Amino acid sequence: MKKFYGGVEAGGTKFVCIVAAGPGEILAQERFPTTRPEETIGKTIEFFRPFVESKQVDSIGIASFGPVDLNEKSKTYGYITTTPKPGWAQADLLGSIQRGLGVTCAFDTDVNAAAQGEYYWIPENRELDPLLYITVGTGIGVGGIVNGKTLHGLIHPEAGHMFIPHDLKIDPFPGVCPYHGDCMEGLASGPSMAKRWGQAAETLPDDHPGWDLEAWYIGFMVSNLLLNFSPRRIILGGGVPQHIGLIDKVRKNVQKQINGYVKSPQVLENIDRLIVPPALGNQAGVMGAIALAITR
Amino acid sequence: MKKFYGGVEAGGTKFVCIVAAGPGEILAQERFPTTRPEETIGKTIEFFRPFVESKQVDSIGIASFGPVDLNEKSKTYGYITTTPKPGWAQADLLGSIQRGLGVTCAFDTDVNAAAQGEYYWIPENRELDPLLYITVGTGIGVGGIVNGKTLHGLIHPEAGHMFIPHDLKIDPFPGVCPYHGDCMEGLASGPSMAKRWGQAAETLPDDHPGWDLEAWYIGFMVSNLLLNFSPRRIILGGGVPQHIGLIDKVRKNVQKQINGYVKSPQVLENIDRLIVPPALGNQAGVMGAIALAITR
Ligand SMILES: Nc1ncnc2c1ncn2[C@@H]1O[C@H](COP(=O)(O)OP(=O)(O)O)[C@@H](O)[C@H]1O
Ligand SMILES: Nc1ncnc2c1ncn2[C@@H]1O[C@H](COP(=O)(O)OP(=O)(O)O)[C@@H](O)[C@H]1O
Ligand SMILES: [Zn+2]
Ligand SMILES: [Zn+2]
Repeated sequence: MKKFYGGVEAGGTKFVCIVAAGPGEILAQERFPTTRPEETIGKTIEFFRPFVESKQVDSIGIASFGPVDLNEKSKTYGYITTTPKPGWAQADLLGSIQRGLGVTCAFDTDVNAAAQGEYYWIPENRELDPLLYITVGTGIGVGGIVNGKTLHGLIHPEAGHMFIPHDLKIDPFPGVCPYHGDCMEGLASGPSMAKRWGQAAETLPDDHPGWDLEAWYIGFMVSNLLLNFSPRRIILGGGVPQHIGLIDKVRKNVQKQINGYVKSPQVLENIDRLIVPPALGNQAGVMGAIALAITR
Repeated sequence: MKKFYGGVEAGGTKFVCIVAAGPGEILAQERFPTTRPEETIGKTIEFFRPFVESKQVDSIGIASFGPVDLNEKSKTYGYITTTPKPGWAQADLLGSIQRGLGVTCAFDTDVNAAAQGEYYWIPENRELDPLLYITVGTGIGVGGIVNGKTLHGLIHPEAGHMFIPHDLKIDPFPGVCPYHGDCMEGLASGPSMAKRWGQAAETLPDDHPGWDLEAWYIGFMVSNLLLNFSPRRIILGGGVPQHIGLIDKVRKNVQKQINGYVKSPQVLENIDRLIVPPALGNQAGVMGAIALAITR
């Protein structure tokens, strides 16, 4: 009999709950908007309850928006920590779900889970450690697998806020990050594009100069991640890289910026195999949650 | 009976060879300038030969300048790859020593070895994974321990070349990196300071504005590493950070640049425990080589 697991992709905009054995083996799925914690967590518990009661599911993975506390020794392990999202600061996401269902859950950031999803389910990726997963959407986030495990640490990576070169003569826009102004997220998130150009990113025409600028900044982030981690695979997910042609521009910019310094054929010649869109598409996060539940 | 190991710190300027059981337990040590590969590797082999013949040493760790090939499946595993140093490009450092002595050796970058040295020998650091080791000297390099092992990957990290903000109005100096101009190494290595100010870094007076600028750039590198890896410890080694007061300026700049975004007491309050000089001082590399030999 096939073994099923639970997965939750807990996003700032919506929650996706799933019962599955893997990609393409989905028993049940539901999505609902992220409202107040009690309501949203309540719906999550109700979704899983029948599967837990029937003993079809005894392990659930949670892929959460952040910042979150990943320190298993901490009193606030599994909490959302300091989000501006009303009601969610200090919300005990992991504990509430565990108590509500009487099931032990695995817990990680949404981007670490997406990295784990791509690593676990895509056979080719198993050989490509370190593997990084970047999302460029409402925010910018980075997760990864290094030496076989997801990246934790002091808190968890927040590489979306990294500092990159910003030439004010070419782009006088000051950035939208409330903490840093022109950090990566400040200069290149979806909302930064909307504010800079006065219209949503997905409505900019293909020949709009905003795309070259966006690909230049994402290039710097990818180049820095390449220099920092020496990853064997960099996956570029989220809404913005879905714009046709953007990932290819990023690849060219990385080659230009690195300028031959990293003498690897994967950078010099096969960069289209180094920097790729998610093989699981928009299922990377939720399939990552399933992988967390399996490998817990 | 105490067990002894061999360690080689193979630098671009000098080689240090050591036989030791650990810090403070050094049986023999020798240093000589890095000349042509045959001569330098020859001296290394001669140093170890008596210890190998007497069976006092059966494992040697090599901490090498780079770039090097760390891929154990590669035909050029253990080679120095593309250095401008005369004679050393494509030099089979690991193989020559192994064949010369008939001993299997462990092999890693100098900075990964230094990270391993600080991690292995300093009990406090064992709890501080991810741990990063930065050197700011003739070049800038970064090594690290993540999830219990050193950072390898496509090649190995080259975070010294990361791209950081460079305000030309404040610092019109174009940088000295032959590949990137104003990457981190281009703006903040020892030679960049010498070229910018017309005198060697160690001769600049304490109140010279070059120190604030240097600490600002190192701040950006450390901030980006903090955001990328979420490390529990960042060790700042090499010649330049030996300037009194520099590390403290770096700590203050990191707090200013991160601007409260990473809500960890280690960043907000105890940053003097997060960013530290090497506990092993200038022995980090060679003691790292010994640790590599032990943990091989
Ligand atoms: N096809 C597209 N091209 C460019 N930008 C897009 C596209 N689709 C969505 N976006 C932008 O991505 C952002 C939403 O990111 P997304 O990853 O879909 O969700 P979230 O980050 O909120 O989970 C918005 O700012 C939107 O403008
Ligand atoms: N006390 C010091 N203060 C500032 N800079 C120093 C100091 N000592 C050495 N340096 C600089 O560090 C560089 C040498 O770096 P070092 O780490 O000692 O060796 P290497 O990188 O060659 O192995 C030189 O550029 C030198 O000017
Ligand atoms: Zn920011
Ligand atoms: Zn460079």
